[in-house]
Amino acid sequence: MAQTRILKPADNAYQYPLLIKRLLMSGPRYNPDQEIVYANRSKYTYKDLVDRIHRLANALTDAGVKPGDTVAVMDWDTPRYLECFFAIPMIGAILHTVNVRLSPEQIVYTMNHAEDDVVLVHDDFMPIIESVKDEIKTVKTWIQVTDEASAKATSIDTLGEYEELLAKADNQFDFPDFDENSVATTFYTTGTTGNPKGVYFSHRQLVLHTLAMTGSISAYDEMPLLRSSSVYMPVTPMFHVHAWGVPYAATMLGVKQVYPGRYEPELLVDLIKTHRVSMSHCVPTVMQMMMATESIKTADLSNWHVLIGGSALTKGLCDAAARLGIHMYTGYGMSETCPLLSTTHLKPEDLDLPLEQQTAIRVKTGIAVPMVELEIVDPDGNPVPHDGEAKGEVVTRAPWLTQSYFKEPEKGEDLWQGGWLHTGDVASMEPDNTLTIKDRIKDVIKTGGEWLSSLDLENLISQHPAVAGAAVVGVPDEKWGERPYALVTLKPGENIGLEDIQKHLQQFVDSGDINKWAIPGQIDFVEDIPKTSVGKINKKLIRDQLTD
Amino acid sequence: MAQTRILKPADNAYQYPLLIKRLLMSGPRYNPDQEIVYANRSKYTYKDLVDRIHRLANALTDAGVKPGDTVAVMDWDTPRYLECFFAIPMIGAILHTVNVRLSPEQIVYTMNHAEDDVVLVHDDFMPIIESVKDEIKTVKTWIQVTDEASAKATSIDTLGEYEELLAKADNQFDFPDFDENSVATTFYTTGTTGNPKGVYFSHRQLVLHTLAMTGSISAYDEMPLLRSSSVYMPVTPMFHVHAWGVPYAATMLGVKQVYPGRYEPELLVDLIKTHRVSMSHCVPTVMQMMMATESIKTADLSNWHVLIGGSALTKGLCDAAARLGIHMYTGYGMSETCPLLSTTHLKPEDLDLPLEQQTAIRVKTGIAVPMVELEIVDPDGNPVPHDGEAKGEVVTRAPWLTQSYFKEPEKGEDLWQGGWLHTGDVASMEPDNTLTIKDRIKDVIKTGGEWLSSLDLENLISQHPAVAGAAVVGVPDEKWGERPYALVTLKPGENIGLEDIQKHLQQFVDSGDINKWAIPGQIDFVEDIPKTSVGKINKKLIRDQLTD
Repeated sequence: MAQTRILKPADNAYQYPLLIKRLLMSGPRYNPDQEIVYANRSKYTYKDLVDRIHRLANALTDAGVKPGDTVAVMDWDTPRYLECFFAIPMIGAILHTVNVRLSPEQIVYTMNHAEDDVVLVHDDFMPIIESVKDEIKTVKTWIQVTDEASAKATSIDTLGEYEELLAKADNQFDFPDFDENSVATTFYTTGTTGNPKGVYFSHRQLVLHTLAMTGSISAYDEMPLLRSSSVYMPVTPMFHVHAWGVPYAATMLGVKQVYPGRYEPELLVDLIKTHRVSMSHCVPTVMQMMMATESIKTADLSNWHVLIGGSALTKGLCDAAARLGIHMYTGYGMSETCPLLSTTHLKPEDLDLPLEQQTAIRVKTGIAVPMVELEIVDPDGNPVPHDGEAKGEVVTRAPWLTQSYFKEPEKGEDLWQGGWLHTGDVASMEPDNTLTIKDRIKDVIKTGGEWLSSLDLENLISQHPAVAGAAVVGVPDEKWGERPYALVTLKPGENIGLEDIQKHLQQFVDSGDINKWAIPGQIDFVEDIPKTSVGKINKKLIRDQLTD
Repeated sequence: MAQTRILKPADNAYQYPLLIKRLLMSGPRYNPDQEIVYANRSKYTYKDLVDRIHRLANALTDAGVKPGDTVAVMDWDTPRYLECFFAIPMIGAILHTVNVRLSPEQIVYTMNHAEDDVVLVHDDFMPIIESVKDEIKTVKTWIQVTDEASAKATSIDTLGEYEELLAKADNQFDFPDFDENSVATTFYTTGTTGNPKGVYFSHRQLVLHTLAMTGSISAYDEMPLLRSSSVYMPVTPMFHVHAWGVPYAATMLGVKQVYPGRYEPELLVDLIKTHRVSMSHCVPTVMQMMMATESIKTADLSNWHVLIGGSALTKGLCDAAARLGIHMYTGYGMSETCPLLSTTHLKPEDLDLPLEQQTAIRVKTGIAVPMVELEIVDPDGNPVPHDGEAKGEVVTRAPWLTQSYFKEPEKGEDLWQGGWLHTGDVASMEPDNTLTIKDRIKDVIKTGGEWLSSLDLENLISQHPAVAGAAVVGVPDEKWGERPYALVTLKPGENIGLEDIQKHLQQFVDSGDINKWAIPGQIDFVEDIPKTSVGKINKKLIRDQLTD
């Protein structure tokens, strides 16, 4: 191919690297007095945010942090964490957002693997660090974080407490320019097998993710999630894919932000009421916990828009939320994809549909957002038809996909194939480009010569009025190959049995939605369904327990 | 400085170049049946747009166009032009948007300078080409464009007519990946002295400009210019800084687009009414022509949002439009800046203000949009205070600024200084970061030891109820250095004189807004104020005529 005419590097500023510091310009410029709230504890303005980010950069630099170093954070969802989202990458260091729900052993593993140099630790997590201190190999400096007047006593030798260090630090830092492909963040994704794997994202990737996010969740009238007048509160943790990257977009636009700290359902609902929160993102489990609170029943939630991800939004949950006036949408992505790939896409006329028909659209995985390519492919990598029926693995291309797994490229060999990132999700695609995830490839139940989606079955079971939640896995079966096995939790006061569920499912057999071998022969009614640290159903554990 | 950790190039798709073809993915995906309208002539869907872009790419390639070649367009504002916005850069060629308002000699100059290989010419401009054919040096292929059943006869040896070529071409083109820094577009900016200068933008720059545009004119509730439900109609020509880049953003979002063809005021108003156009961008001159039509008085324009640029939005024009229910905003940028730098920024409470107070905000140059840095500096390049009073030259950094002038880097030496692009505009900045352009550096009137903004004075004169428009330049004066001289046009049926204007201006002297030497001693009442090809007041011509 002949050459395009390529801009030559010049020593002028047309080369303007895409750095996270650029995302911090417009919000404070538009709205210097806009509020950033920390639960029912404190609040400050965007002007203060900028001041504190400069102080944090000086405090970290004074503590010896250099570009290329890794600074880890173990904190609740707080404005402090937002400060770290900016200050740490902005000095050229790498922000490691530690998953505080991992076991102490896994936390040690991720810290050693990421080669953390400095760690900020909240009081509440200090006991974990105290218990594993001797196993942590690379950390040179500990910084304590507290919500109290003074930090709790600890056997760890810390540099000091966060607020004290900020108070002492200068509030002017000259953030340098550097290569936009510099790594900005890293965190660990917990597979169902083996050790956590480190994904990482560059400044360029995070800036592009932020900009394209406003081209989807800001520009669509039927999904007005993030607008200048929004009030944003994350309800997926900041250690989990940068709270889906929304704090960067919210800060760029200068919107009011509310950080809840701990995820206590009553507190979350109270904050939504107090601050008229208009936008959150959430996994179904936490949403269900919030829906189960007393106080939600008296709240006006008609202005609350919730992007659900992590696991599929079930019809039951979507309907229940809609009856409270909540606007629910599905977002799709994963740790490896920064995460945003697609969202629900409603058309103007869809908003006039009855609730149940709207729900049928809202629970779909949606349409790829701007700058993202999504395709479904067979095991040979060939596209399968977009007919709403044929299933294939979801593959993607986008400007913000992780390059590999940190220091373990061999684990990423399955991730990148033929120039596409392979998600491990199985989906169908409709002629109008709407994707519907059916299952994880490894969770598909191969029964009676067909692929049965365990998610579909969970969804159908959860539509029984007595059912609170359901988990389905395949168990080996001589005749059928595999047969579905279900764990079910019931709503308070309900008492039903295997036959009730089977009878409930028979209607979907009758209507042709599922085959008769999709009806589980075995159902265990349990108190709790095992979940992973990020709230997903832990199917590996369920399978392991069955094998035991 | 120590090194950041930089992502290594790998042969996987994490390297996802920012190419214009990516902007074409989401619109047709969201809204395949959305309409793209050509005036009162024809319309087609986004699905058709994609089909036609593929055909155009094949037609051009069949005609010998290779990556790196330059393809020029001389057409009205049409869906064809939109097809060229995509297809030409998408094959790796460079789109030269010819300013059809230039003189034939200047058109020849720009074609030769840009080294055009192929030119698409509308019937209406063919006589120009016929008249200068022998002076055009590099063009190998001419393609004719017509709005009639068949193209007009011409002495130019053309390859054929656009629609015929598209009909013959295959509708599948495999658009390649290439370096995102490849030049995508070029066009010529007409200075007041010397030959036009070529600016040029890369794929990366146009993609980033598009994405950041949605982060401003889509996300701001007080300025809902471009949303998924918008109906967009450009009213600044597509040859003029890609119609400010809005066609790219509108296509990315999948919004309805209306291309007006020629700028006939009655036609424009008719299209706004027929299609419920909700968003346009416009220069004041054309806006004034539309305001002067009979039909606008009976139109419901309460949903029409207009971004005014090119020249300052005057209070008079803004008030008059507001009285018709039109939502007016200022946008700021220039050919060299792709163009978007800043827009009006209204706060929620501003919308409750009386019209005149809103106007005072809407006519300001506004606040820099996301990813843009704006500063005002003195002649030594040092920032001047942001106190709303001190004046300095506007300088900028952003990811989408032209690198230089094509083949004439020496002409760009003043453009880039100290890592900032120098706009040649003089402005003040308020403590809240709101910029107000006062004048072009060369149009400031140095009188009585102070800098008097010719724009300020034009604005004050235009507030006289009998005045339709005003142009002010400085003329040499022995006593004062310079004194203002004004050209004034009156509204139909009005008849006032020098003293009326002087009396009108005296009130602003009394209130301290201007000094007494700002009152012109000389005013010529004229039929028309000389304008440049892009509708700006041609002050060079006015000065030249005065000297003559």
